[in-house]
Amino acid sequence: MRGVVTPAPHHDGSALYVPEGVPALGDTVPVRVRVPRAAGVRDVWLRTVRDGEPRLAPARLDRSDEHEDWYVAEVLVHNPVTSYRFFLDEGDAGYRWLNGRGTWDRDVPDAADFRLTVHDGAPAWMRDGVVYQVFPDRFARSAGADGRPLPEWAVPAAWDDEPHGAGPDVGTQYYGGDLAGIEERLDHLVALGVTTLYTTPVFPGRSNHRYDASTFDHVDPLLGGDAAYASLIRAAHARGLRVLGDLTTNHTGAGHEWFARALADPGAPERDFYYWADGEPGYVGWLEHASLPKLSYGSAELGARMIDGPGSVVGRYLREPFGIDGWRIDVANMTGRHGAEDRTHDIARRLRATMRGVNPDAALVAEHFHDASGDLAGDGWHANMNYSAFTRPAWTWLSPPDSSVPYLGLPVRTPRRGGRAVVETMREFDAVLPWRVTASQWNMLGSHDTPRLRSIVGSRAMVEVAATLLLTYPGTPVIFAGDEVGLTGLNGEHARATMPWDDASATGGGPGRWDGATFDLYRALIAVRRGSAALRHGGMRWVHVDDDALVYLRETPDERVLVALARAPWDGVVLHPALVGRGEAERLHGTLDLAPHDGGARLAGDGPAVGVWRLP
Amino acid sequence: MRGVVTPAPHHDGSALYVPEGVPALGDTVPVRVRVPRAAGVRDVWLRTVRDGEPRLAPARLDRSDEHEDWYVAEVLVHNPVTSYRFFLDEGDAGYRWLNGRGTWDRDVPDAADFRLTVHDGAPAWMRDGVVYQVFPDRFARSAGADGRPLPEWAVPAAWDDEPHGAGPDVGTQYYGGDLAGIEERLDHLVALGVTTLYTTPVFPGRSNHRYDASTFDHVDPLLGGDAAYASLIRAAHARGLRVLGDLTTNHTGAGHEWFARALADPGAPERDFYYWADGEPGYVGWLEHASLPKLSYGSAELGARMIDGPGSVVGRYLREPFGIDGWRIDVANMTGRHGAEDRTHDIARRLRATMRGVNPDAALVAEHFHDASGDLAGDGWHANMNYSAFTRPAWTWLSPPDSSVPYLGLPVRTPRRGGRAVVETMREFDAVLPWRVTASQWNMLGSHDTPRLRSIVGSRAMVEVAATLLLTYPGTPVIFAGDEVGLTGLNGEHARATMPWDDASATGGGPGRWDGATFDLYRALIAVRRGSAALRHGGMRWVHVDDDALVYLRETPDERVLVALARAPWDGVVLHPALVGRGEAERLHGTLDLAPHDGGARLAGDGPAVGVWRLP
Repeated sequence: MRGVVTPAPHHDGSALYVPEGVPALGDTVPVRVRVPRAAGVRDVWLRTVRDGEPRLAPARLDRSDEHEDWYVAEVLVHNPVTSYRFFLDEGDAGYRWLNGRGTWDRDVPDAADFRLTVHDGAPAWMRDGVVYQVFPDRFARSAGADGRPLPEWAVPAAWDDEPHGAGPDVGTQYYGGDLAGIEERLDHLVALGVTTLYTTPVFPGRSNHRYDASTFDHVDPLLGGDAAYASLIRAAHARGLRVLGDLTTNHTGAGHEWFARALADPGAPERDFYYWADGEPGYVGWLEHASLPKLSYGSAELGARMIDGPGSVVGRYLREPFGIDGWRIDVANMTGRHGAEDRTHDIARRLRATMRGVNPDAALVAEHFHDASGDLAGDGWHANMNYSAFTRPAWTWLSPPDSSVPYLGLPVRTPRRGGRAVVETMREFDAVLPWRVTASQWNMLGSHDTPRLRSIVGSRAMVEVAATLLLTYPGTPVIFAGDEVGLTGLNGEHARATMPWDDASATGGGPGRWDGATFDLYRALIAVRRGSAALRHGGMRWVHVDDDALVYLRETPDERVLVALARAPWDGVVLHPALVGRGEAERLHGTLDLAPHDGGARLAGDGPAVGVWRLP
Repeated sequence: MRGVVTPAPHHDGSALYVPEGVPALGDTVPVRVRVPRAAGVRDVWLRTVRDGEPRLAPARLDRSDEHEDWYVAEVLVHNPVTSYRFFLDEGDAGYRWLNGRGTWDRDVPDAADFRLTVHDGAPAWMRDGVVYQVFPDRFARSAGADGRPLPEWAVPAAWDDEPHGAGPDVGTQYYGGDLAGIEERLDHLVALGVTTLYTTPVFPGRSNHRYDASTFDHVDPLLGGDAAYASLIRAAHARGLRVLGDLTTNHTGAGHEWFARALADPGAPERDFYYWADGEPGYVGWLEHASLPKLSYGSAELGARMIDGPGSVVGRYLREPFGIDGWRIDVANMTGRHGAEDRTHDIARRLRATMRGVNPDAALVAEHFHDASGDLAGDGWHANMNYSAFTRPAWTWLSPPDSSVPYLGLPVRTPRRGGRAVVETMREFDAVLPWRVTASQWNMLGSHDTPRLRSIVGSRAMVEVAATLLLTYPGTPVIFAGDEVGLTGLNGEHARATMPWDDASATGGGPGRWDGATFDLYRALIAVRRGSAALRHGGMRWVHVDDDALVYLRETPDERVLVALARAPWDGVVLHPALVGRGEAERLHGTLDLAPHDGGARLAGDGPAVGVWRLP
């Protein structure tokens, strides 16, 4: 078979290669690597790094089948994070390293080595779930909202108004969505099939986004207060849904009660909660915003109030009467970092210890827009909002050539890149993390901080390609409420559109309206994911990548799922039987054609199109 | 000019781009980037990471010449290590990032970002010097050595015996070189032109290498003792040479007096200096060697004796009557690392603080055979023995196709790789370090732990290519004594050959004998380096790389040096005038032809051959 795609040597941290469970310091863990017979590998060695020193030990042949040799080697978990990679001796052809980015015929640094860690990962419910993100002001408004007096800062908007994308009132345009409104619409989440409700902050502030808290002692009365939050959580739990909160550990609002006391009384304990500075405004603000004074964790009292122990803010909302199932931490990347101070790892570790003490099954997710690799291997954040290894590269593959949508954080429009560059980016950002983290990373196609997916990709057909990627990729899919009905938005603020519940019967909504066909697509793909262990926590093997098509395998010891995504017409490809097995594949989703061919299979070159198959 | 090599956008940490000197926290540092007009760049932005958060700011056009635009941007040194890179907006063509590895048309993690740090670098004498490494047992034997009684462990060898490369006595084969012998031969160092003498350990042990110290309180009497060491250092200083010691901070010998006390008395303070363990031998040894018990820096008393303050081992030998100029730290990568403990950064910082207190101009170099990136940006080691970014990739380019020499630490013969893979490796390992470290890294073509250069490359012609690379590359060249006269050796032990002083008049020695032509070559290249500020601390621009040829520029604001290395006949190349300027180049070394061509220059395709030119 000429021009046939054949397998490459492969290892990842999933159960086919590494036993499930969290090793303890001193444990020995057998790790397996698959090496295609055709790769010409003569011997396989394991390289580990122990106390800073690399060492090599031979792997042994464990088993062989028609196509592949499986080698096994033992990793001694000597350090809390123990890295390893494989050395493939190819005889006269030289050697290659196999690390998290693939194989290399030259020496490479350790950054992309595989890793075992002694730190437990995210709870299975998060790893295997689907998260639904709600921005409370914009999701649903209960009848009770009508009676509430507006705060001074609020600029009232009608539910159908288009959110402003720029201007003085992007933060104050007020639609009045509330917690009872969310509770009334929980059946929508159940119908969609998501498993976890994540809301952006519910504490009072001076803005529609509430990332400028004025207190952490109670839930915003504008949202219905503590009772409404407790009721929402009870109702969600009753439907089998989990609920995550959102906490600004990096800063408070300038209207926060702590900040008021700090300003009023230089002797107050709250004085040490903030960084004071010469010049206006006299203190350090997040990205120099005077409205968001940065918190200083040099203060033990701040630690006690905010993160340490069951009585802290972190602990209190995990307990009754609330009982949230975990936290998303805002600006986690900057929390505890200021100049020569770097307390971030310590804070993350303490925060997680508090959560473990109250609810060992709680989840902890960090916000970091770029390279979070330095913060994710320890006993802190379980996972990260995965802009860098998923959202951004995915956009650059899904975006049309003439995008007019700005590219998050950069002064350009979203570029369109070929699949190879895109997958290299995904793998490079992924490979610096332990697999246990990768398997729980929050993959998003958008959030309250970005343009809307529908506006980025430009068509419903491309939304299907995008959503199929999201719901078949390793990690936890996160859907920003409204994406599933095709809402649009050109930047983070403009994307905070209200849910058009009045249109909910429509099947083909225009821009900003309810698109039932998109809803059906998301519902179907979520069901496929929830029905497949391989898609939820199987390994990840890239099979074929070209500019317009991505093909990969998700595998557990018991299930193999093939995913093919084409953003445009392409050449198609023939897959070797070692990759697809022999026999009938079961189509789980999509229309792309997969036909038996020469013992293997031929993938058709249509596009935009997708296919998801359970292999024999 | 078709097929002409033109410049690429470039920045590095050298004086053309970043002001010299060490910034303080809070300083603003202007950084410059050169962008060829032809690159199609419309705008340049600076991206910095501040408190963990990336931010972009526009650079401004500073000046332009015929070929290039120079942009400048300001980096606020807000964190002790502040990373940055450039964003090149290419309009409709998209954008590229410029980091330490070059340009990227996709998003990349932060590992290869440029870095400013508030930590001072190696002293100028080390950065700008050439180090000569001596293994005392094998360098020179004074008449005084004859009278010394042999210790029990020693297996005496005659000076002309070939060192054993394997077997039970590789560590005990004893030639009896001593410190007075080195002192007698200092004129050889002066004639060669090196500036710094670095000796492997001089403390007593039970081996010829002395990495198994039995005390740090005095110099080995077999070497002549304290008086001989003090005399050697005085004599070296009198000739303008610096002297570096070698300290095993990671372990002692099992014969160490501290270990004896620890074994004899469980109540002794020395008991806490080591890691005790169940099973044989009852303690943790370096790489499980019972002869080398590992030191535990959980003991404050060990810190006081070994590293903290002027009275510690580290401090004492920097002071009179010795006055060494710095330390090379053995197994620095493992020092302080054991299981869940990781005190390495703390130890390095304390060790450097001690040195700064005694002699602010002292140098501190770490041993690490692989990826030291995590340990080199702080206030600890000035630099590292640069196996990873220099020695190993250089070998793979210089090695013949059919090498029979083992490749350090790997179970294969040294592979031969093309220039592109080699330079990618060098750049990838270099780019993870601050430039200030790169500019002082200890570049070696071999050491007492490796095969000899002459055996690796196979011919004197290839030794010239190798030595030209060494002496024109950024960092501090380190020459293992004997390489400069063409000694051979097939592994680290076998390479510890004695200096054949009796042959010193020869001009064409056979294997293991004195090759005067090689000596003349090294002497000439060292003189070229010492005569060129650009070669010593200029920037590094890769100009052209193909499988068989490497071409680069070393530049300061006042001098430009072009280096071309060919390991074999190649196609030659035409260089654009933007790279080589107009006018006559001054040949500093080599025979490769550089001829004026179309305003630029043509490099001839001979090989093996080298050329080094000062450009107009």
